[in-house]
Amino acid sequence: MTYQAYVFDVYGTLFDVYSISEKCTNYFSDKGARISQSWRQKQLEYCFLRQIIGSYIPFHEITKEALQYVCISEQVYTTEEIITDLLQAYLKLSPFAEVKQALEMLQSETLVVFSNGSLDMLHPLLNHSGLTSYFQHIISVDEIKQYKPSPSAYQHVCNRLNMQPKEILFLSSNTWDVAGASRFGFQTAWINRSNATMDLLDVTPNYIVNDLQELIGQLT
Amino acid sequence: MTYQAYVFDVYGTLFDVYSISEKCTNYFSDKGARISQSWRQKQLEYCFLRQIIGSYIPFHEITKEALQYVCISEQVYTTEEIITDLLQAYLKLSPFAEVKQALEMLQSETLVVFSNGSLDMLHPLLNHSGLTSYFQHIISVDEIKQYKPSPSAYQHVCNRLNMQPKEILFLSSNTWDVAGASRFGFQTAWINRSNATMDLLDVTPNYIVNDLQELIGQLT
Repeated sequence: MTYQAYVFDVYGTLFDVYSISEKCTNYFSDKGARISQSWRQKQLEYCFLRQIIGSYIPFHEITKEALQYVCISEQVYTTEEIITDLLQAYLKLSPFAEVKQALEMLQSETLVVFSNGSLDMLHPLLNHSGLTSYFQHIISVDEIKQYKPSPSAYQHVCNRLNMQPKEILFLSSNTWDVAGASRFGFQTAWINRSNATMDLLDVTPNYIVNDLQELIGQLT
Repeated sequence: MTYQAYVFDVYGTLFDVYSISEKCTNYFSDKGARISQSWRQKQLEYCFLRQIIGSYIPFHEITKEALQYVCISEQVYTTEEIITDLLQAYLKLSPFAEVKQALEMLQSETLVVFSNGSLDMLHPLLNHSGLTSYFQHIISVDEIKQYKPSPSAYQHVCNRLNMQPKEILFLSSNTWDVAGASRFGFQTAWINRSNATMDLLDVTPNYIVNDLQELIGQLT
């Protein structure tokens, strides 16, 4: 293969953030699905806004505040125990079906995780799913307190790996992440799991595939 | 009154961006309302993302690309004429009901517009609604190509007015705008027109009111 490292986004790319929706439905019944969706959307919005206004806090705090906001906004009954239980579930998200086999097929390569998540979220999540051993590096933006998709975040990966952007294939299901990484200079693969529309941000991924298996088929 | 200048956000604060939804419904029938909502949401998202990844384009281009994205994503039939007509409607948005009278009551003060909108959108909009003459300054982020809520955007207002942040009352209906302005150091008023929930971004506006008339009642 032609890349020095394969750098994977985590939430939405390796793990299904909506695998939490069942638990949301248990607590919030008919509002559960919407709360699950709004929680993720607000979580991302808070990363972007805090990056812009310059008020970084770790991802686990953003994730909690996003959930608290959505519960207030949706006017659902909640307790500290419910919030804690839902946040715990974020440490046990389900990997997408093809992920483990795809990582097996790439074992001869340098595989890296790079996430907006803080290490206190990433390590339990990867351990719970048994994926930790596949990765040589687990890199969090928390090390520099600059969220993706800022150029400084992607530069941190180059610094950690001592590689040039063009030597790296960055894989993400998030269009904002693919856009930021492409703009920075990474080679990029958009794992378009939900048949979504690419955002109009003047960037074109090197690969557009439905899952990691399809990507491997195009790499080999 | 106790402020050197009253600086108003435009979209959502002085003008109702959803006054365009009727035209969307004419073109897209039952999808019109959702397209109107998604268009605004995507327009804001593109401002935030382009600010973070460092790929500024003027607001009128972002507004067009946001509309194009939503039309593709919603799989609705559209033409260049439809897109153009909807973008033209953005130059004729309706001001909220109390705006004109509120500006009249503040005429002895220094009133300023400060928007992410480019001047080629702001001037026609303010002229069409007959509000131009109320403002001593019409300031756009396009002059520095840094979108709100970045600190550099709010600093531009201080530079243009030759004032300190604390001398300025900034008024916006957008929680991300109030958060960025408060964080920067402006005095802030959140015009909470839709009974929304304040975002959890570690900032508290100096005033929280339902419209400009209510704010004036608290100022005097």
